[in-house]
Amino acid sequence: MVTAELLTIGDEILYGQIIDTNSQWMGVELSNLGVRLKRKTTIGDSESEILTAFAEAEKRADIILITGGLGPTNDDLTKPCLARYFNCEIKMHEEALTEVTEFFKSRGRELTELNRQQAALPECCEKITNKMGTAPGMWFERNGKVFVSMPGVPHEMKRMMTDIILPKLQQTFKMPVIYHRVIRTVGIGESFLADKISAWENALPSHLKLAYLPSLGEVKLRVTAFGDSTEQLEADVNEQVQKILPLAGEYIYGYGNDPLEVVIGQTLREKKLTLSIAESCTGGYLSHLITSVPGSSDYFLGSMIPYAYEIKMRQLGVKPETLEKYGAVSEPTIIEMANIVRAKFSTDIGVATSGIAGPGGATPDKPVGTVWIAYSDKYHTVTKKLQLSKDRLINIKLSSAAVLNLIRQSLPK
Amino acid sequence: MVTAELLTIGDEILYGQIIDTNSQWMGVELSNLGVRLKRKTTIGDSESEILTAFAEAEKRADIILITGGLGPTNDDLTKPCLARYFNCEIKMHEEALTEVTEFFKSRGRELTELNRQQAALPECCEKITNKMGTAPGMWFERNGKVFVSMPGVPHEMKRMMTDIILPKLQQTFKMPVIYHRVIRTVGIGESFLADKISAWENALPSHLKLAYLPSLGEVKLRVTAFGDSTEQLEADVNEQVQKILPLAGEYIYGYGNDPLEVVIGQTLREKKLTLSIAESCTGGYLSHLITSVPGSSDYFLGSMIPYAYEIKMRQLGVKPETLEKYGAVSEPTIIEMANIVRAKFSTDIGVATSGIAGPGGATPDKPVGTVWIAYSDKYHTVTKKLQLSKDRLINIKLSSAAVLNLIRQSLPK
Repeated sequence: MVTAELLTIGDEILYGQIIDTNSQWMGVELSNLGVRLKRKTTIGDSESEILTAFAEAEKRADIILITGGLGPTNDDLTKPCLARYFNCEIKMHEEALTEVTEFFKSRGRELTELNRQQAALPECCEKITNKMGTAPGMWFERNGKVFVSMPGVPHEMKRMMTDIILPKLQQTFKMPVIYHRVIRTVGIGESFLADKISAWENALPSHLKLAYLPSLGEVKLRVTAFGDSTEQLEADVNEQVQKILPLAGEYIYGYGNDPLEVVIGQTLREKKLTLSIAESCTGGYLSHLITSVPGSSDYFLGSMIPYAYEIKMRQLGVKPETLEKYGAVSEPTIIEMANIVRAKFSTDIGVATSGIAGPGGATPDKPVGTVWIAYSDKYHTVTKKLQLSKDRLINIKLSSAAVLNLIRQSLPK
Repeated sequence: MVTAELLTIGDEILYGQIIDTNSQWMGVELSNLGVRLKRKTTIGDSESEILTAFAEAEKRADIILITGGLGPTNDDLTKPCLARYFNCEIKMHEEALTEVTEFFKSRGRELTELNRQQAALPECCEKITNKMGTAPGMWFERNGKVFVSMPGVPHEMKRMMTDIILPKLQQTFKMPVIYHRVIRTVGIGESFLADKISAWENALPSHLKLAYLPSLGEVKLRVTAFGDSTEQLEADVNEQVQKILPLAGEYIYGYGNDPLEVVIGQTLREKKLTLSIAESCTGGYLSHLITSVPGSSDYFLGSMIPYAYEIKMRQLGVKPETLEKYGAVSEPTIIEMANIVRAKFSTDIGVATSGIAGPGGATPDKPVGTVWIAYSDKYHTVTKKLQLSKDRLINIKLSSAAVLNLIRQSLPK
């Protein structure tokens, strides 16, 4: 199997001043290509460390992908180190100079001497055009090994990888055929899901691998198939997906990249249904999830966040008797909240949250993490009581995910 | 200077299935301690790779901090590899067994054999108690070098580092005296800030270093001082902070770890002022920022999210004439929104947002990224027009940060 290593260069990543998100993205892309990643290394802006890391990586892997250290200032050492490592001169690259000049021109800025120098490249490399910035990428080949240097700026690196480097790697190396499918589940924990599907998992053909990818409020299953033909692998994966449905179908909300708020948005749009929200303990986060989706104004009309007791009564209109008798965190209150917001905002669906996010606000019978959620449409009102964690932010996020799941389960068929 | 390396073990990190946030946090903590980080390495669940990485790291650094690979299943190899590397047996550790038993008992769960085995440790290590989980940490010393193994779960690792490992490293090694101060600014971009303070920056004494840490909506300045006495360094930093105030004081909202929503919350609580929000284009994110702060119910009473045109009129109560004449994204509308929400919710302060987050909704005179924000109290109403980016989520977050800054600037003195 073709192997690769990632090398990240820069003090600011090493010392934790910025988070490295590049290597996670690159890991996924390489794995989708069928390349086995052997190691990720981060080193600082030091010539000797960089040269040592080049030599070590070349011994272990076929492909060495380098990000960072391509800026115009003196502490950016990747380019001189590569020139030295591959033993060649740095010379002005005319095409690269034209590109960087155009880049500045199109933004109405003047080319400085520092930026001009970014178009000078080691003679032994192939230039890779940077459509999103000023530092070109570089491709080196020697003894069947490939070194690629890219800028550390995420959107510049991603565009280069997607447009040029990944296709070029596929041409250069003989890759296995790989097919992936992500199955997205919600409403069940990782270990319970594993229990439900263990017989299925154990019976998977040996060329299919399963990975559990849990995150806050949901668990993704990634099926990876290895073989000779994409069509065959796709058919093999389809067959297994059909077999998992009777075991865990009720928790599966989609396949691929779309999170639950996008899937729910598509359903609401298709069914021409509108949504309003009365959220208390989630404090705006649920509305934010819904409105983070482009075009959500097609189905989402608005929310009320009645955080204070008086606002629940005076503005939303929950009956004082209900609040006095049962409290704000109770089933009768949550039912009123969902019904009232639906009526006031004239939407097809109303949902509501009320709970104790913590750390304060607990009572003996309502500990931190007690949350009521409700869904209401013209056919029915559905409620659910959650008992979550001690952590405020986790409670806010889990409650919001639980409401999305309640909408998914309760929508008119 | 004492040097360290970080070693992250696990296929799921290597292949990008989960993002590694640990090493960023650890990089900052080590740097605060005065330890020079030389390298961060991520490798997969492979015995030979792990043993090789141990040997390489030991050659280069004094301290090797290892996370991951401590789970109870067969693919978790860190413990057996450490036992082999330090040439000692794995035996049941009675105190660790008591701790893991207690941990399960306190959660009402039964101890499984797999989890029981987590209390078996290499004889040559010192156990580090895991207060937040089941896998103990391990501390090894040999020839003046220290290896520490920790779980990869972020909150378990952080608690162990803070409570035990960082203090123990300070006892074991002779660290330089280092003093840090973070100066938090908002409302000014990195390059403009750099221009304003360049004379100050260039005149900093040589034992003080400045770093710019920009993030969405704000720029943090970190001053690091190196010397012999904390008191002296603190005095040196205080002197420089006094000198930066005339240059950039209007943008400085705090020092240390508290983000703007916490600082504003403290001010509102001290001044006994209450807040309500009418947010349209920010869709709940602004309310979420405010309510992410524990105890925010002391000053935040509630929000209206009038996403649809009709809700702006019928529920919030913006005059139809205003909306028809000027549109939803306009100064007259934003003024009404802030004033109305303040009156309806009976709060001291009302703030509002209305804009085109994108990608849809633009008009020729109102491109994507056009946002109006307003602040209203009994003394005055302040508005601001923003011209932001093409990216929906960035626009939502930048608008919310801009409102927080508007509150900071407009609060009654």
